[in-house]
Amino acid sequence: MSGPLDIVRPTLVLDEAKVRRNIERMVDKARRSHVTLRPHCKTHQSAAIAAWFRDHGIDSITVSSLDMAAYFAAHGWRDITVAFPCNVQQTDLIDQLAADIRLGIVIDSLETLKILSQTLTHPVAVWIKVDVGYGRAGVHWADMDTIETLVRRMQDSPVLRLTGLLTHAGHSYNAHTREQIQEISQASLRRLRSVDAVVRNHSDVRCVLSIGDTPTLGTTEEIAGVDEIRPGNFVFHDVMQLALGSCTEEDIAVAVACPVVGRYPHRREVLVYGGAAHFSKDVLQPPLTERLPGLAAEQEQVHGLVVDAPQDVSGWGPVRPDAVLTRISQEHGILKVAESFWDRCAVGSPVYVLPIHSCLTADLYPATISLSGKRLERCRTNDTRAGQPDSLV
Amino acid sequence: MSGPLDIVRPTLVLDEAKVRRNIERMVDKARRSHVTLRPHCKTHQSAAIAAWFRDHGIDSITVSSLDMAAYFAAHGWRDITVAFPCNVQQTDLIDQLAADIRLGIVIDSLETLKILSQTLTHPVAVWIKVDVGYGRAGVHWADMDTIETLVRRMQDSPVLRLTGLLTHAGHSYNAHTREQIQEISQASLRRLRSVDAVVRNHSDVRCVLSIGDTPTLGTTEEIAGVDEIRPGNFVFHDVMQLALGSCTEEDIAVAVACPVVGRYPHRREVLVYGGAAHFSKDVLQPPLTERLPGLAAEQEQVHGLVVDAPQDVSGWGPVRPDAVLTRISQEHGILKVAESFWDRCAVGSPVYVLPIHSCLTADLYPATISLSGKRLERCRTNDTRAGQPDSLV
Repeated sequence: MSGPLDIVRPTLVLDEAKVRRNIERMVDKARRSHVTLRPHCKTHQSAAIAAWFRDHGIDSITVSSLDMAAYFAAHGWRDITVAFPCNVQQTDLIDQLAADIRLGIVIDSLETLKILSQTLTHPVAVWIKVDVGYGRAGVHWADMDTIETLVRRMQDSPVLRLTGLLTHAGHSYNAHTREQIQEISQASLRRLRSVDAVVRNHSDVRCVLSIGDTPTLGTTEEIAGVDEIRPGNFVFHDVMQLALGSCTEEDIAVAVACPVVGRYPHRREVLVYGGAAHFSKDVLQPPLTERLPGLAAEQEQVHGLVVDAPQDVSGWGPVRPDAVLTRISQEHGILKVAESFWDRCAVGSPVYVLPIHSCLTADLYPATISLSGKRLERCRTNDTRAGQPDSLV
Repeated sequence: MSGPLDIVRPTLVLDEAKVRRNIERMVDKARRSHVTLRPHCKTHQSAAIAAWFRDHGIDSITVSSLDMAAYFAAHGWRDITVAFPCNVQQTDLIDQLAADIRLGIVIDSLETLKILSQTLTHPVAVWIKVDVGYGRAGVHWADMDTIETLVRRMQDSPVLRLTGLLTHAGHSYNAHTREQIQEISQASLRRLRSVDAVVRNHSDVRCVLSIGDTPTLGTTEEIAGVDEIRPGNFVFHDVMQLALGSCTEEDIAVAVACPVVGRYPHRREVLVYGGAAHFSKDVLQPPLTERLPGLAAEQEQVHGLVVDAPQDVSGWGPVRPDAVLTRISQEHGILKVAESFWDRCAVGSPVYVLPIHSCLTADLYPATISLSGKRLERCRTNDTRAGQPDSLV
């Protein structure tokens, strides 16, 4: 064994100290800004990691599916928002969860509202999802008719309790500078507030304003104009956040450790056991790659950055300028390697690679292994994908 | 419930009749060509589906990891090749499997050969992986020195038994026409045979020549010049194979059924519960998209083709020209939808989407559900990713 872990197969390794520091910083930022932190758990999907938030007094969380809500409810969380447009195929589960905990759901259509009002028997906190420009989900911020109708219909429902307006400025991921991210953030807020003003005209409810994306929250020191934040990715961060400028290299808290299985000196490439099945297929391309160090800056496609393998539990080393993950297929990962890193790539030795998008990478693993060898179980939401909700918890 | 299945969550649905027909055709092609069919199981990863090959007398298979070999060995397969450069971190498992079955492993370096010859105690069938131009794994076809040395060293080993030359012309996936695929196939064969000639000069072993990619095998009626074929993807096929011309729409045997969760008439888009966590992130871009029907041909990014939802167990309908999956994030899928398909997208109804790359899509599910509701378990190789090999079988 070299290093603190025996890497036999592609393994998702977590630096607990970094995760705890990322959490602490976000908790501080939320406190300083007088906003509620309702962390999104879709990145880590782990009751063990969620408990580290509880150490800071956090008692509400965000998840991305009802099955994930069921998992965290079973682990003692009593205030959970499912920040994904409500799936009306799961009204039984909604009702069951709503009987036990303070469940928040998200709606953006009259169709969904109608189905829910006809089927649910327990009260749920309803968030109206507002599309502030991302164009993925939500009532468009200028569609005041739909907003008004949603608000009015909820007043008639004994179980659907209007709670707030929720948005996700995911287009901040398309920004290439901190300034662009801040512009998006400001425009999103203005739009969210204009919707809030309409709600106030039609309801006594004082809507909670909730926002979500990690780049926006990572590039600002203080958060103003909202009541609640729901960042998720910041727990682990990744190479995408690094390229966007919303974290530093030292903040990236997960790496995929991959055994070397092949060496091709004539093309200065090394093959690792670790591919799309272990990283997912997210990729960085120019111009974002141009902000990465060394060899990575020269590539058309970057699937991960290589760091020095850890020597002990204190963590892995800095990003190597002389190696980069440039291609992946199902089980294969190809590293471009300069002379200076070649000798670290003996057959069988582990190469530690920081992933492009930690949410999707972590989603491929049933558990994360800490540097000290602790196994942190994750929610098995993918078990539900073939109709096995009971195996979840 | 509308259709034969009750789609509550994103579900990987399989058309058993199509899979069986795809298998039968490949079995026939192999028989006609007098080559051994050693089907690659990494696409389906299912003992139930592998058994459909056994119905045709097939008794040897290919897998992409040692853990997958352990799964199929536990399900009665006695002749398994692991077509991935041998991971020397798993020599214990290799030795254990080699004690029970005819295990084939792949090597492409002297380093790996040395470690194996020092650690294994049971005989294994060794395939030399030859790089015929793909540039991913394998000894480069012109590197005769390495080939010679590998052959010589195996002659000195009591357990490493030179069996054949194995290659994967994966660059056929970069071809844009059937003619280009055929050119790649011919060049690959010439290179493989030139390596074979060198082996014959240094050994009495009559090497088995084994080739693997689905596009090459899908675009040819008869296979000549090799002894064994290892296609995998053809069992399910997918939109990539359709665009490459190596299958027809009717051959695609899996679809992801996704409940509709949002409708955005002003941008003619529909949101489904089904994203990167359910499709993986493979994407088709121009010029390949230009060969797809209807709306898909106009897109810069295609993440899946929409078909009419099945009305009964006889299967889903043809590819819709008026709807296409254009964007995905972790749980979200955005469909571009024309007027004529709009009414099929009521909130809660399932949209069936053919995936771009069925191997990676299927890898995200613990099981596949047939149109008649049968649950086909898959190998849980991802369970091993956090050190749980025992949970595999």
